[in-house]
Amino acid sequence: MNNIKTYGSNEFLKKIENKKSTFICVLATTETAEIEGITCAGASSKLMKYTPPADAELIQVGMPLSLPEIPQTPGATAPTPGIITKAALKLSNMPFIAVSAGCEITPQIPYVELGGKPGKDIRTGNAVENPEQIYNNAKLFAENYSKITEHIIIGESTPAGTTTALGVLTALGYNVKNKISGTLIENPHELKNKVVAEGLKNSGLKIGELKSPFDAVKAVGDPMIPTLAGLVMGSEVPVTLAGGTQMTAVCALIKAIKPEFDFSNMCIATTSYVAEDENSNIHDIISQIGDITLFASNPHFEKSTNEGLKTYATGSAKEGVGAGGVLMHALLKGISLDVLIKEIETMLE
Amino acid sequence: MNNIKTYGSNEFLKKIENKKSTFICVLATTETAEIEGITCAGASSKLMKYTPPADAELIQVGMPLSLPEIPQTPGATAPTPGIITKAALKLSNMPFIAVSAGCEITPQIPYVELGGKPGKDIRTGNAVENPEQIYNNAKLFAENYSKITEHIIIGESTPAGTTTALGVLTALGYNVKNKISGTLIENPHELKNKVVAEGLKNSGLKIGELKSPFDAVKAVGDPMIPTLAGLVMGSEVPVTLAGGTQMTAVCALIKAIKPEFDFSNMCIATTSYVAEDENSNIHDIISQIGDITLFASNPHFEKSTNEGLKTYATGSAKEGVGAGGVLMHALLKGISLDVLIKEIETMLE
Repeated sequence: MNNIKTYGSNEFLKKIENKKSTFICVLATTETAEIEGITCAGASSKLMKYTPPADAELIQVGMPLSLPEIPQTPGATAPTPGIITKAALKLSNMPFIAVSAGCEITPQIPYVELGGKPGKDIRTGNAVENPEQIYNNAKLFAENYSKITEHIIIGESTPAGTTTALGVLTALGYNVKNKISGTLIENPHELKNKVVAEGLKNSGLKIGELKSPFDAVKAVGDPMIPTLAGLVMGSEVPVTLAGGTQMTAVCALIKAIKPEFDFSNMCIATTSYVAEDENSNIHDIISQIGDITLFASNPHFEKSTNEGLKTYATGSAKEGVGAGGVLMHALLKGISLDVLIKEIETMLE
Repeated sequence: MNNIKTYGSNEFLKKIENKKSTFICVLATTETAEIEGITCAGASSKLMKYTPPADAELIQVGMPLSLPEIPQTPGATAPTPGIITKAALKLSNMPFIAVSAGCEITPQIPYVELGGKPGKDIRTGNAVENPEQIYNNAKLFAENYSKITEHIIIGESTPAGTTTALGVLTALGYNVKNKISGTLIENPHELKNKVVAEGLKNSGLKIGELKSPFDAVKAVGDPMIPTLAGLVMGSEVPVTLAGGTQMTAVCALIKAIKPEFDFSNMCIATTSYVAEDENSNIHDIISQIGDITLFASNPHFEKSTNEGLKTYATGSAKEGVGAGGVLMHALLKGISLDVLIKEIETMLE
């Protein structure tokens, strides 16, 4: 447990001990990602929509098919956190299922379709067409799927997903200004706040007084958030939400849908880069929602010889594609960080 | 075992004893189904394309969403065999995954997308655009999925699928004239033979001398056949092919792709209505392919009070949507036929 830090109770670990796990990665796009300077989850704003399918392809077949190379930040400074996920899944031999919540570009590998559509720019105040339908389909899928696996780890690939998370949390009445994480070293809080404010204004929603929780997603969310809420609520087995502050938006939506929801059968697992980030505060957001355990795994990329990986240690990329949660699972299985870093370095060469 | 008859070895039953099973239903359409008089897997030739999604929806949520009522034969004489599957799955609490191999109408429930397209009329000799890609994606899916389940039962819903099966078997060099089953009481062998002959002529293929086994599917097949071949060949756990003579086309394709393939880790499971059909001969086709065990379950619908079900006993519909295989599984689990028939009758009311 040296490289895993627990914020909250360790009880969840007993529930997943020696259990068979499946990794589900939910893919979604939102046109919000095309706003200049809002995210670096892709080499350019025009390429953002290729990141989710390319991440899934990288995990499934070892290389992206929808893009000529592994998704990375502009200037090729940091590779996608999908490489952490890929290496950790490979070493722990965990099955993987891709789920499309709504993607502009669909992956060239098998994936589960839920009938969602790509998200629109949240500045319109009309971002997601059918959040409740996506939620219901995701719930149905998890009801079935959890009959076969014993533990589900859910990650996501949604460029600009922290901005839409900020939108949903704000619309649901949480105080999350400047507390949301991001892929950039300099988190553009001002820009994100402005984008969300514009979307909320155009939506006409009264913050904290929604007719339906899904209205928050409809106005300023993305297709990923209702999908994850549905997967968690449909699952009969423990769920690890593998991600950073975006996962708090999922938990907030779950609580809004079902205020009595018991969070003890799930946890959030992220990287230390998010948990210890000075430019965001996942702990404060979680404390506003409920009794949710957070685990943070440290990949110690400062030890790597790869320059791209090293930038993670200085705040680039940080998390995504389920990296933190899948890493935790690999560490719990006894896989050493040295072996993992070596595996990732080999992949990048 | 009173209601299950074995043709071949009983060894397979030992492999699946007390194993956790999943039912996968593969959905596909082919424009071949619009040829008047070729199939009755839908109320009219124009409605055939709604049968696969409606079958999957019926199984998943208990009623069709893409159609106003349960798919049935023209004149509403026989309901879809999907009702047998639905009742047997419910009573045996088995998880269900829908897979689209290529559908004109996609289901309104979660499903796995493999990147296939709907099949064209086989008379063109150019029926399936990308059989090898569908096969590869199906294989990839099964490689992953078989890490979690212990036994996979695979059914299909493909109106006119016996005609495309006739096409593929013929193109691969088998002698199957008048041996293929069908949904109609009077099997239109003449029409099917004519359609296949026209397709083969237009394809320019030399029967039995194909450059690639996939050419048979490309010319006169449907998207379901390469999907099932991929699922079987990708699975690390035993597979039950739940269906009638269509499944022999799948086995023939598997053998053509990999002549040394060991069929002992799979079986075909159908209904007695197919196995004892006087207007087709599944046993003869199997004997031409290899050492494949066939199980036939008898639902004894002659005992039902429902007129639609009774028509099964006189040769209507016979099989489909995995009915025979899922029924066998329910019987092996100790579910009685009386309870099963009662469940189906309640559903139909």
